[in-house]
Amino acid sequence: MSIITLTTDFGLKDHFVGATKGKIISGYEEAVIVDISHDIDLFNTTEAGYCIAAAYSSFPKGTIHIIGVDSERNDTIQHIAMQWDDHYFICADNGILSTLTQRKIPQKIVAINIHDRLQENATDMDVFTTVACHIARGGHLNVIGKEIETLKTVNELVPKITNEQSVIKGNVIYIDHFGNCITNISKKLFQEMARGRSFEISFHNKKITTIKKSYSDFNTSDKFTLKDFEGERLALFNENGLLEIAIYKSNPKTVGSAHSLLGLKFRDVVTITFS
Amino acid sequence: MSIITLTTDFGLKDHFVGATKGKIISGYEEAVIVDISHDIDLFNTTEAGYCIAAAYSSFPKGTIHIIGVDSERNDTIQHIAMQWDDHYFICADNGILSTLTQRKIPQKIVAINIHDRLQENATDMDVFTTVACHIARGGHLNVIGKEIETLKTVNELVPKITNEQSVIKGNVIYIDHFGNCITNISKKLFQEMARGRSFEISFHNKKITTIKKSYSDFNTSDKFTLKDFEGERLALFNENGLLEIAIYKSNPKTVGSAHSLLGLKFRDVVTITFS
Amino acid sequence: MSIITLTTDFGLKDHFVGATKGKIISGYEEAVIVDISHDIDLFNTTEAGYCIAAAYSSFPKGTIHIIGVDSERNDTIQHIAMQWDDHYFICADNGILSTLTQRKIPQKIVAINIHDRLQENATDMDVFTTVACHIARGGHLNVIGKEIETLKTVNELVPKITNEQSVIKGNVIYIDHFGNCITNISKKLFQEMARGRSFEISFHNKKITTIKKSYSDFNTSDKFTLKDFEGERLALFNENGLLEIAIYKSNPKTVGSAHSLLGLKFRDVVTITFS
Repeated sequence: MSIITLTTDFGLKDHFVGATKGKIISGYEEAVIVDISHDIDLFNTTEAGYCIAAAYSSFPKGTIHIIGVDSERNDTIQHIAMQWDDHYFICADNGILSTLTQRKIPQKIVAINIHDRLQENATDMDVFTTVACHIARGGHLNVIGKEIETLKTVNELVPKITNEQSVIKGNVIYIDHFGNCITNISKKLFQEMARGRSFEISFHNKKITTIKKSYSDFNTSDKFTLKDFEGERLALFNENGLLEIAIYKSNPKTVGSAHSLLGLKFRDVVTITFS
Repeated sequence: MSIITLTTDFGLKDHFVGATKGKIISGYEEAVIVDISHDIDLFNTTEAGYCIAAAYSSFPKGTIHIIGVDSERNDTIQHIAMQWDDHYFICADNGILSTLTQRKIPQKIVAINIHDRLQENATDMDVFTTVACHIARGGHLNVIGKEIETLKTVNELVPKITNEQSVIKGNVIYIDHFGNCITNISKKLFQEMARGRSFEISFHNKKITTIKKSYSDFNTSDKFTLKDFEGERLALFNENGLLEIAIYKSNPKTVGSAHSLLGLKFRDVVTITFS
Repeated sequence: MSIITLTTDFGLKDHFVGATKGKIISGYEEAVIVDISHDIDLFNTTEAGYCIAAAYSSFPKGTIHIIGVDSERNDTIQHIAMQWDDHYFICADNGILSTLTQRKIPQKIVAINIHDRLQENATDMDVFTTVACHIARGGHLNVIGKEIETLKTVNELVPKITNEQSVIKGNVIYIDHFGNCITNISKKLFQEMARGRSFEISFHNKKITTIKKSYSDFNTSDKFTLKDFEGERLALFNENGLLEIAIYKSNPKTVGSAHSLLGLKFRDVVTITFS
């Protein structure tokens, strides 16, 4: 059994996602196909990179991840396949995989070179699905590409350390379905910097001075039940180890969320000051 | 083969649904995973309860249903697994399963107690998927939980009988993709009360005096074709046996729907008066 | 293995799509079910027809396509199953398949007649899934329907040739997730008409005089990179061979799209004038 995941900005209304699955099944009948997301903001490689980095480790080793975001090949952008942490990733070399390669060195990267072997009007997804089926059947990367050493890195949104190791300046890199705002500040970086010091998280003139263990980690009592804390802002490290600013029991469509109530947007700065 | 269904409020943009599927496949390779909904209104256990009650019987006996809505465990809410009508349901004990348990007595309920056996930062979905894979492999409920007798019941939205058995006061419990408004008034209750009497369905100063057999159950003729009835309000018992207020050929995005044109909202009262 | 695809206007919030899959698995355990779209504009048979025509050829021969759009059976509309280009299509005879039957003669069409054999309250989707499972198990069409010769054709949106073979008047038949506007003008028709002549594509007082090979088919140089062409309007033949009006790197939610910036709507006329 080979698992192939899909992360795209195709949306779910059009036929593209279904057609892509048809192509995969046509190429490798036993494929188990799992959708990660098809609602990535259009051409947004940062969002795509966050989603695939957050999701991949839930899948078994050997899983093949196709990422169809901003994947048109041109003079400056190649199609690539990467083996990394015993998973496979197939996409355009547009920075999507930077988050992964910053954490761990790839096992192998190839620049895909099968384009001439496909039919004339083959699309980018025809290339990606052909490569995915090749890997799923146990094929080697060298057969479908030429080995290269490095990928394009996009370091636009990386947390910065300033003021003699007493300040982390991070950014909101993703806003989720609950309106929670996920930053690029990892628990690891926080702990290395904190060294037992007290801290203050700040953004847009708002402050948070504790990091909770869970969304409902409030001091309930006979006087105050959890219901009384609905609407409270909080910070926690999410299951992917990233600092997240949230509202307890948020709902973007009704009561609001960290995104709407605290005004946090994609790329906004979130600062942690240690003292 | 074991089928595992998913009903959540996670939305489809984030990586959570894909990651959940990865965890299930990692735990039980042969799982057949089917999405029921991931767009449940956030934390809305009434909507989740409606959806799972409406969907479960379309699946084979033995199917395992994971419901990830408002599932954080805390001092007052346990994680539970229930065997009911030869199906399995895994969720937090937050009232979601009330609709089911009101209809039929559960075969077995356990309060899940495997949390200490999982890794420290295990999420609620880690717990649910671990339990689901255990059941899928043929495991017993007693291995993953302690038997309990009853679930929390949430009876907030139950139809009321008044005026010496001549009035049913129900509520809108779900508004569907077509803007149709589904009530908690069942065909069974209606028939028990009606006993051949005439009736009037009323809401917001509007009245309906017949219940149709299908959406297109209009008296067409040489003079009036079905097209002439588009936009007409109607009532019928839907495929789940619940009274539904609809507009023929509604479209929330263009011509409007029962929800938008008749002003019916979640929780609104719909009254049937017999005479 | 039998593949069954689903194209509906059910949306993804309600339980209907999940329940339909449950019914298919109940009827044919080994079915591989693939979603093409569940967000077809409600009752819009033109959109449904476009999607299925664009998607079907990505699937292996023998695939069964269920189309649940405007599928209520009544005095004037039958349920039908069609074998065409070695694929199977199941839907109501409401014009959805016109695009296909205009291209190629069906191998066989039957009017489904199993309704009396199903339980009394069987829904349209119960009929369709029962037929799909029958075909998936290798069953013949004649067992579940009575052979008929033709389908209803809906020719409302077909390109027109005027002015002594020098003008094609087509229409926008679909607007995709990127806001690109797809017309019913095929590459084949264009080439037959063009015969080397120069041409001008026009709509709403706007003109395009070239057809690109890909979205990024711009003349880049030291002075102008691809980034400088973002926002440019363009025309190309898409992977389904239909003329598409697009904006390079469009985004309906942010910078706009062909639909929002050029004002092209469903059914709007796009004209090609040869000279």
